[in-house]
Amino acid sequence: MIDHNSRIDSALFGYLPSGDLREQALIDSMRYSLEAGGKRVRPRLVLEFCELCGGDIEAALPFACAVEMIHTYSLIHDDLPCMDDDDLRRGKPSNHRVFGEDTALLAGDALLTLAFEVISRDETAELAGDRACRLAAKTLSHYAGAVGMVGGQVIDLQNEGQRAPIEVLREMDFKKTANLIMAACELGCIAAGADEEKRRAAASYGEAIGIAFQIEDDILDVTSSDEELGKPVGSDGENEKSTYVSLLGVDECRRLVRELTDDAKNALSSFEGDTASLSDFAEALANRKK
Amino acid sequence: MIDHNSRIDSALFGYLPSGDLREQALIDSMRYSLEAGGKRVRPRLVLEFCELCGGDIEAALPFACAVEMIHTYSLIHDDLPCMDDDDLRRGKPSNHRVFGEDTALLAGDALLTLAFEVISRDETAELAGDRACRLAAKTLSHYAGAVGMVGGQVIDLQNEGQRAPIEVLREMDFKKTANLIMAACELGCIAAGADEEKRRAAASYGEAIGIAFQIEDDILDVTSSDEELGKPVGSDGENEKSTYVSLLGVDECRRLVRELTDDAKNALSSFEGDTASLSDFAEALANRKK
Repeated sequence: MIDHNSRIDSALFGYLPSGDLREQALIDSMRYSLEAGGKRVRPRLVLEFCELCGGDIEAALPFACAVEMIHTYSLIHDDLPCMDDDDLRRGKPSNHRVFGEDTALLAGDALLTLAFEVISRDETAELAGDRACRLAAKTLSHYAGAVGMVGGQVIDLQNEGQRAPIEVLREMDFKKTANLIMAACELGCIAAGADEEKRRAAASYGEAIGIAFQIEDDILDVTSSDEELGKPVGSDGENEKSTYVSLLGVDECRRLVRELTDDAKNALSSFEGDTASLSDFAEALANRKK
Repeated sequence: MIDHNSRIDSALFGYLPSGDLREQALIDSMRYSLEAGGKRVRPRLVLEFCELCGGDIEAALPFACAVEMIHTYSLIHDDLPCMDDDDLRRGKPSNHRVFGEDTALLAGDALLTLAFEVISRDETAELAGDRACRLAAKTLSHYAGAVGMVGGQVIDLQNEGQRAPIEVLREMDFKKTANLIMAACELGCIAAGADEEKRRAAASYGEAIGIAFQIEDDILDVTSSDEELGKPVGSDGENEKSTYVSLLGVDECRRLVRELTDDAKNALSSFEGDTASLSDFAEALANRKK
């Protein structure tokens, strides 16, 4: 999946407004957080599922960028003082520490808006068709919205300082983390014009790896050393938040990650193409050390 | 245009997620600001232009609601402490004063996202067609984004405490205020399947009334009494911000409003239908007392 990243990056930055703009600080702020990006997991999933469904990568690229823009805006807003109040994001100063809270807020708004512009441009429609553009906007807005990712963030706020039960934790992670990953998997299928059944299978894969990722996060928080993890271990426990480990214990969590990873791989059986890289990806997430 | 408002309101609230939701606080916060809504100017323009182009109002309603959701989210974010820090909006406590900054931020994000969901739903596509949905998303995202409304807000931030020249003021108001009104006018045409020429004429109308509205605002700020205006008069001058009046004087501003109102009415000559209510609307904005 590595070779996809350079295509994603060049498409991503190509969508940023350019020229002699009075609002250049906004564009700089948007670019800063897009550049601070991590492994491009979500856009890569868009491209992978598009290929798996026999689609044209070029048609999927705008959708891939849109998902990454949504992910990036959510991190900018999440780091704001009124939310998690984080000074650092992936080892670099968070957006608002560099550009100020006001510009960071607006950069998030602009990235969220740009995601839908990229999906609905004439150039995207020429490659993917009007219907695929519309379905992509529908799917992404649903998973990213009030009963999706944003809803999950609200449940997370309510969970702070509380010992939430497992079903709340599960719903929170399903919405906050898994839903955008599900959107990515489905958008790849939509770009390829795949049918409902394939889209549902892709969403199942996305759900399973998304939840497994969160559980693995909680496991690493208690079993990893600070050095391996790149952040203080045990920080979740100190915040008096429920975690999968605090509710279920490490062994049960490991069993769940194994089960979800198998679920993800089973979901791939709905596809005829070569599923090896998506299968490997699910395994790699389950076995990661940080 | 009055009779449109009840249809807009019932459609608007109908799009909010319902049911037994853990993120109910988010939905309440979204509803609060939609209910605090003013005259529904933008969604009414969507419906008016749709009718003028011979389109079906039902197809335009989702687009109308989407524009109002974007307008509402921008007000919520604008009132946040890191922006204008306003405790009141239209005489009621601002969203973050009631729901907290974190939920207000997320309610804005969710309304922005919902706007694009409403445009791209299957039910909307059945009425308007996939292509119209795609064009509506494209148009709205462009005008509301980094080089549109959000860009205008960044220019406004930079203008604070500065004596910006007239061209900066004009660009700021074009982007911050006029662009979303232009989007509303164009979206009405798109819902009716109108051609490019009509869409451009609608945008010209929107631009003219949008800029006229801002200049009229500045005039009222110095000529109105507190009582008439419903807010302290002269507040712009105290903030050391450039205004049209401070740069051009009241008489020249009145002449500009007259000129722009005539421009708006002239733009309507591209349409064959009955333009009386849109013509009256431009006049009413120019002659308003608050």
